[in-house]
Parts: sequence; C-alpha cells; structure tokens
Amino acid sequence: MEIYGLKLKEDVKPGFNLAKAIVQAAEDIGGLKDGDVVVVTSKVVSKAEGRLVDLSTVKPSPFALRLSKLLDKPPEVVELILNESSSIVRMGRGTIVVEDLRGIINANAGVDVSNAPPGHAALLPLDPDASAKRLREEISRLTGRNVAVVISDTQGRPLRRGQVDVAIGCSGINPLRDRRGERDLYGYVLKIKEIAIADEIASAAELVIGQADEATPIAVIRGVRFEEGEGAKQLIRPREEDLFR
Amino acid sequence: MEIYGLKLKEDVKPGFNLAKAIVQAAEDIGGLKDGDVVVVTSKVVSKAEGRLVDLSTVKPSPFALRLSKLLDKPPEVVELILNESSSIVRMGRGTIVVEDLRGIINANAGVDVSNAPPGHAALLPLDPDASAKRLREEISRLTGRNVAVVISDTQGRPLRRGQVDVAIGCSGINPLRDRRGERDLYGYVLKIKEIAIADEIASAAELVIGQADEATPIAVIRGVRFEEGEGAKQLIRPREEDLFR
Repeated sequence: MEIYGLKLKEDVKPGFNLAKAIVQAAEDIGGLKDGDVVVVTSKVVSKAEGRLVDLSTVKPSPFALRLSKLLDKPPEVVELILNESSSIVRMGRGTIVVEDLRGIINANAGVDVSNAPPGHAALLPLDPDASAKRLREEISRLTGRNVAVVISDTQGRPLRRGQVDVAIGCSGINPLRDRRGERDLYGYVLKIKEIAIADEIASAAELVIGQADEATPIAVIRGVRFEEGEGAKQLIRPREEDLFR
Repeated sequence: MEIYGLKLKEDVKPGFNLAKAIVQAAEDIGGLKDGDVVVVTSKVVSKAEGRLVDLSTVKPSPFALRLSKLLDKPPEVVELILNESSSIVRMGRGTIVVEDLRGIINANAGVDVSNAPPGHAALLPLDPDASAKRLREEISRLTGRNVAVVISDTQGRPLRRGQVDVAIGCSGINPLRDRRGERDLYGYVLKIKEIAIADEIASAAELVIGQADEATPIAVIRGVRFEEGEGAKQLIRPREEDLFR
C-alpha cells in the first residue's frame, strides 16, 4: 500500500475547482488509478465551497459573550460555534464539545481560524458526504477513473490524548468494514469486529498530509482494499447506542 | 510512504522469537531499514509472551457469574476481564468498558478469545511499552537497524461507530507529535494541535494487516517522519483531563 501527498500550487479560494486541481496534482504520481482513495482535508473543501466567515460581520449573542470568557475564544468565534451546533455534549476546561448540524460530535463544531485568512474562520462543509460525492463524480468525469473520496477532519477523542484525522465525508467507499462472520486462525467466528476503515484511511493520510507543510492538503492511498458504498454519516454512533453520551 | 504486510510462517507459540521472525519476514521487502516503523498486533505479542489462559483453569467468582449473563460472555472470560481491570468505566448493552491494569481504557480489558487456541483466551501483554522496547532492541541487535516498534490493538471508541487500531505500546517513537507553536499558511500560530501519531500509525497498519488473512500480524511503514521517544502510556488521557470520564 502506498500513500502519496499532493501539493496544491495556489491558495484555495471560493469557487476553486478542487477536482481539477487534484487531477492535475496527481500527474506527479502518474495520474489517478481505479481503486485509488483520494483523501482531502475538510479545510480545503470548506475554502473551495466558500465556507469562510469574516469575523467582523458576526454579532455575538449575550450567551456567546459569556461563553467566550469560559472558553477563552473570541466571542465572534463562539457565536459561530453555537450557530453550527444542535446541542452541547460537554463544556469545560476551555473546550466545548457539540453535536453539530451534521450530527458529528466534535470540538468547536469544527469552526477553525487556523489556515483561514486573517480575520476569518472556516466552517465545515455543509454536507461533507455530498461534497465527497461531487468531488468523486467530477474526478470521474475528468479522468474516467473510479476513485473513492474521503474528506478528513482532525478531531480530539474521549479517553485518549492527542488528535487524529477521521472521515467526516466519503463517497465510493463503505466507511465500515464488517468482519462479523469471518473466521479466525482457529475457525472461531468473529462476533463483533466492524472496522471503521474510512477513519483509518483518514488517519493514514494524515501521516503524509500533516507532516508536510500545510500546502499538502490531499493524499492518495493506493492498494487498499475496500467495498463500494456511501456516506461517513454511518460512522456517527447513535446517541442511544453510546455509553459515553 | 509505503506500508508492507509481513506474514509469519508458523503459528506463534509461547517463547516464539518474534524479533527474529520479523527480521526474517522482512527479507521479502529487502530487509528492515533505519527509520522503518514495525507495527505488531498485540495478539501476536501476547501469544509469544505466553499470555494465554486455559479457560478450564479459571474459577469464576459469584460476581463474574452474575455479570456473565448481563454481558452474554462465558463466566470464565468475565473472571479474566475482572482480573485484568482496576476499575469499571461503563457497563451495559453487552459491553464492559474498564480501566485495565495498564491504565488503558478498553472493552473487556482486551481479553479476547479470537485468534487464541480453542478453549483459551489471550490477555494483553503485561507491559506493552516494555514489550515494544525489547522487540526494538532485539531487532537492532539482529540487524544493526534503528527502527521504531508500535504494538497495536483494536479498540472501539466513544461517539463513533466501528473499531480502529491504536497504539498500546511503542518504543523509538514519540507517540505524540506536538504541533503547537507551528505556523499555518497565513502565519497563525497553532494553539492546540497535538497529533497522536502512534495511533495513526497503528490505524494505517491495520489497513494492511486486517485486510489480509490473520497470518499477517505485522506491518512495516516506511517513509513516515517521527521523533524519537518512548511509551504509548502518554496516549492515555488522565482521568482529571477527560470530559467523558
């Protein structure tokens, strides 16, 4: 299995044709091939989709003003976090963990000022699965190749220190690989193994993306086996199944 | 970056020389090189270290007998789980999440009957960081190469569906990569980014290990940048810092 980082030659601005830029950048690795998984950071998708907000246009609510002290964040950023959230899961220690409008549980609803132009914050793509599907279809149109697309985001985790990249959108790949029913070395039938392959792919890509400079927001993974499927939404554990909600 | 799966030619039994077997298997990829990361599943380390228990020798306590009904597991397995645990973090829905003797929070304290001989359960290595260190030193002695070793285990996660492989032991690699202080594309100084690189490496390796048959318990990752360091214990979030404990 190989993982290649792809550099973009220019800063991504709203309306930027990301599929075309990916296809061009992939020429350095001999072009995209059938079965490749293209991993794109959510930040670059957000920027291409114009999901940037000028903080000077945001009017914080009284609640956002109070929270901004607790969280040690600018009130405009807190207002955006609340705008992107459907509920608050945990709050404390300078952190706010929310269920965001997409159903994803993350810190700060994914609102991020890093790698956004000064005075701006980037919001997550409105519908990352739909963004992945559009990218995949456009890549297919440009190249005739059948690739999978994963949109990755950096997230903290309960119980473990440090952040890892996970999949918040995907197309052309089933994000879960069900191993239940497979047999082990001794013939024992596996009962509970269901692997979050799209999250593992996002994490693997981060090893290349995160270690280069920030102008390498794309990775291509070649030689990984996966089933066709759609939608990283499947990776969100329903509240009623979650012992930690 | 490349990831290679390594097959073992024989079933791993107590006393098996894992370092030697890894070095021999790596001949297929031209031998180990300086800077390679060798990822080994905890199961194969456990087996080599003789961490297998014959279930017929286990006498379940009254509490284990009662829990066995709630968890739908054999009472002997429940007894082993309790023996390996220092506290119970969550219980319900056929699942028991514990803080194990190593401080790791995991389901079933890592006690697992899959890929163990019939009638046996495998326990996690007693001290996975020490196991990683021994493997690394033995590989260095055999080859003269400076590699890092990561011991991986498959874990479920709060909030997200599906399991991923994480690092429960490591040597020769700092499991956390601190990006705080680095600057982004626009010169903004990153405030909170600390990447759990060893967990990402374990997840990346699973893409190769888990997709082959179970006789491929080792992966070599070549071309990933990391800092030297020791100890996957650093990846355990202290209870007082955890909003989800």
